[in-house]
Amino acid sequence: MQLISGGVCAAKGFKAGGIHCGIRKNRTKKDLALLVSDVPASAAALYTTNLVKGAPLTVTKEHIADGIAQAVICNSGNANTCNADGIEIAEKMSDLTAEVLGIKASDVVVASTGVIGQPLYIDPIAAALPALAKNLNYEGSPDAAEAIMTTDTIDKQVAVEFTLGGKVCRLGGIAKGSGMIHPNMATMLVFLTTDAAIDSKLLHKALHSDISDTFNMLSIDGDTSTNDMVCILANGMAGNEKITEENEDFAVFMKALNTVTVQLCKLVAGDGEGATKLLECLVSGAKEKQIAKTVAKSVICSSLLKAAMFGADANWGRVLCAIGYSGAQVDVNKIDVAFRSAKGTIEVCKDGAGIDFSEEIAKEILLEKEIEILVNLNDGDKEACAWGCDLTYDYVKINGDYRT
Amino acid sequence: MQLISGGVCAAKGFKAGGIHCGIRKNRTKKDLALLVSDVPASAAALYTTNLVKGAPLTVTKEHIADGIAQAVICNSGNANTCNADGIEIAEKMSDLTAEVLGIKASDVVVASTGVIGQPLYIDPIAAALPALAKNLNYEGSPDAAEAIMTTDTIDKQVAVEFTLGGKVCRLGGIAKGSGMIHPNMATMLVFLTTDAAIDSKLLHKALHSDISDTFNMLSIDGDTSTNDMVCILANGMAGNEKITEENEDFAVFMKALNTVTVQLCKLVAGDGEGATKLLECLVSGAKEKQIAKTVAKSVICSSLLKAAMFGADANWGRVLCAIGYSGAQVDVNKIDVAFRSAKGTIEVCKDGAGIDFSEEIAKEILLEKEIEILVNLNDGDKEACAWGCDLTYDYVKINGDYRT
Repeated sequence: MQLISGGVCAAKGFKAGGIHCGIRKNRTKKDLALLVSDVPASAAALYTTNLVKGAPLTVTKEHIADGIAQAVICNSGNANTCNADGIEIAEKMSDLTAEVLGIKASDVVVASTGVIGQPLYIDPIAAALPALAKNLNYEGSPDAAEAIMTTDTIDKQVAVEFTLGGKVCRLGGIAKGSGMIHPNMATMLVFLTTDAAIDSKLLHKALHSDISDTFNMLSIDGDTSTNDMVCILANGMAGNEKITEENEDFAVFMKALNTVTVQLCKLVAGDGEGATKLLECLVSGAKEKQIAKTVAKSVICSSLLKAAMFGADANWGRVLCAIGYSGAQVDVNKIDVAFRSAKGTIEVCKDGAGIDFSEEIAKEILLEKEIEILVNLNDGDKEACAWGCDLTYDYVKINGDYRT
Repeated sequence: MQLISGGVCAAKGFKAGGIHCGIRKNRTKKDLALLVSDVPASAAALYTTNLVKGAPLTVTKEHIADGIAQAVICNSGNANTCNADGIEIAEKMSDLTAEVLGIKASDVVVASTGVIGQPLYIDPIAAALPALAKNLNYEGSPDAAEAIMTTDTIDKQVAVEFTLGGKVCRLGGIAKGSGMIHPNMATMLVFLTTDAAIDSKLLHKALHSDISDTFNMLSIDGDTSTNDMVCILANGMAGNEKITEENEDFAVFMKALNTVTVQLCKLVAGDGEGATKLLECLVSGAKEKQIAKTVAKSVICSSLLKAAMFGADANWGRVLCAIGYSGAQVDVNKIDVAFRSAKGTIEVCKDGAGIDFSEEIAKEILLEKEIEILVNLNDGDKEACAWGCDLTYDYVKINGDYRT
């Protein structure tokens, strides 16, 4: 399992591109991404659990019902959500994409991200599609990754290489953050591709299973978006024997998928709106996996802890507090807490009570850009990890006037 | 039902006081409050549901089990939580208070608020108690209200006068905010007093019932504190016929209680850490009361909406988004949203979709200090209200380095 470059185009037979079509006012910012497989691919997707759903999700769900897709069209700058004509526009996006690519409209995945409740017009998209399709290429991952960004400050691309039955396969993807991130059954927009051959039912199973430990353990601000979607296309062009059961190859595939999704989680969390730090909460010693997950997510979601981390303040009482209200049944008198970064590790709480520690060393550790909050429940051997970021002035600034 | 002055001392026979004893470094800030009834009173209290509980809560729970209390001792600056000797210290606080007042230790309610996980020393409290007891007086509400403040910028006192069987009664209270506020079965520290005579079981019932619509509908930052407590003492000195059943008098009492608690909620929310605005989310047209409550609380808790309100940005899509992920079963296509303030009302969403509105007028309305977010689910006749505040730079500033 090796990290490679190429992002969403690392797998064989996937082209991508991105263009500025005019949905955004800023002409230097790409706002329309296109991703295409040379051949129809097995496809699976998961969506937000928010009852308010972006119109593109409804259309995508329909198109992907047969387990096959070949292209993804995605705009940023407008979520196409809470619009009376939303479905109609999403269908038009799909139809026009199919037309320009010469594929079936029912094989197109449609996605949108941006402001909720503002009309999305088809004209700029229609006008830009021919040029976008013409410029698609096998090194197009950076362009597509950029075109799906909203308040993201960096594009997010990850890929790995692995072997199935002697055949070299690749799995990669792109993601966008960076606000309204508290995925539930899916995340913001994540598009994954692989050239491994895998049955679409197993592909769905792999995605579903992986996400509960990756994107569903990620939170920037506690707000579950209306447009979350994670989608994977597997075009089989690596030539491996098609995975049709939960065998050893499936396990390797799951590992590849997890490697990519965990990296994407870290990239999304570290680039959370206004974030200066990536936070990882590692919970160990849990009686049950679900307890570890509940505790990790509660800690990572605490506004108070997030603000303390921004200030590099080793306020471990807020970790205990967030564990206490998480809803998980834990023995608070057994809990140990430590903070870890590239600068070292410092223990701050033992058996649920404070211990003497050097505030100076703690500060030095917490001034780093990647902070691990280590919680040991000392009650079993199950573990979990959750990802988030600090709460900063810039989060408030970005969201105080997002629409203008 | 008339609002009167006097706060927690408005009711007959209640003295209070506050003093700087030295728990806080800032000598101009009072940090120890004492409240005493001339006679033993019926008492009821509710506590945080956080599994990590302040030691004072354990002691108070024990003392109040018989439904009787006569005094409240409360320090700020230190939560006495996650300390190995916490219970011992809380018991000493209670013993010393009883001694100086000449009452039973088992009739003392103990509370602490402030930093979690730092040792609380009894010495400064012991040294200050005699002077504090000596200076207790029937106009002492402001001193006590000040002494329980942490990051609060204003003290919080409310009282009402009402009549039970021809007898004039009073009910008042003090509260503190202003961070780690997301009460669950209780709130931060709220001390209520009344001179109405009421059986302690009914007092508990009244408090329990009231709180589900008041303090439990309040959120500053989504963090449920370890030290939440709301406590009420009823000393019967108004001379009304003791309330021992759910009769008309009980209904009047409930109304008086609700008037005070709603006002305290607004005071706490409006003075949330860093807040520049009080937010009220009024949900109407719900099929069930619980749906209205879930929706109201989800809206008021959304970091994104809170930041938008800080920026006076009519980003109603975030209201819809927060309704959608609230978990309440609603028909999103029926939802209307409007914003209201002293400057007027503006409708921004009808039937779940955006409508044309003047951004200029919306801005003018949202620049006010008290904003109502009006949500009509158009699906029934049940209502609920939740209180919160905007998310600002100062929230981050206050919590980036709270301990120093």
